[in-house]
Amino acid sequence: MAEQVYYEDIEAGSEIPALVKRPDTRQLVKFAGASGDYYQIHYDKDFALASGLPGVIVHGWLTLSFLGQVLTDWLGEKGTLVKLNGSYRGMNLVHEDIICGGKVTRKYEEDGRQLARVEIWAENPRGEKTVTGQAVVALPSRA
Amino acid sequence: MAEQVYYEDIEAGSEIPALVKRPDTRQLVKFAGASGDYYQIHYDKDFALASGLPGVIVHGWLTLSFLGQVLTDWLGEKGTLVKLNGSYRGMNLVHEDIICGGKVTRKYEEDGRQLARVEIWAENPRGEKTVTGQAVVALPSRA
Repeated sequence: MAEQVYYEDIEAGSEIPALVKRPDTRQLVKFAGASGDYYQIHYDKDFALASGLPGVIVHGWLTLSFLGQVLTDWLGEKGTLVKLNGSYRGMNLVHEDIICGGKVTRKYEEDGRQLARVEIWAENPRGEKTVTGQAVVALPSRA
Repeated sequence: MAEQVYYEDIEAGSEIPALVKRPDTRQLVKFAGASGDYYQIHYDKDFALASGLPGVIVHGWLTLSFLGQVLTDWLGEKGTLVKLNGSYRGMNLVHEDIICGGKVTRKYEEDGRQLARVEIWAENPRGEKTVTGQAVVALPSRA
């Protein structure tokens, strides 16, 4: 577990510790069941190739879930993920690294809470952004 | 829906209407979730080939479930499947026909019920038995 982050520790531009995930076919099959998305491009390589894809494709919602993990790992026990959204930009292939990162864009107080806006993104090994999004987090204060 | 079968209609040697199933990768992925059997030979063709198998393999429990369907389709609304068991004998591949059949081996009355013992089997397109089993069913009487 990383050290607890506090509102005082961050500023606009602060980077969030990256997380690298490498989902295998089993994880995609489990995610198909968890999400109800049984589209064959997510587990049937022959189907994916016949559809003109380079291989089995990771569910975009799974990649966004990894971005959620980047945030909750960083926020620790005392922080809260308030809002998360993302957009699908490109493909992650099964058995390939998904590099997940984020950066604080703004910190502000509102309704007595210490908040931060965060940009988040996932990349494939070709350096292409595959999911990008924004989050709002609430951080504990050292005060 | 087939016509209702009655105890008076059958005798040792009576055949049960065959059922042909052809599971696709989606059905196997759904069955992985339903059964909790996430072994990759059931959805990951590369993994299956690397394991020395000729392709993606149907879960034996799914084939046995089809044999259950042969029986319940035949038994109709008024009959009851009392017991079902089976043994794995050989492989069914995804996208191939599974020919499911059965035959009554004995009819008898016990504790006021009209029962039958049934042999059941599944075959692959190469004529190999892949799952074989036995069932006990209770049938309604015309009396």
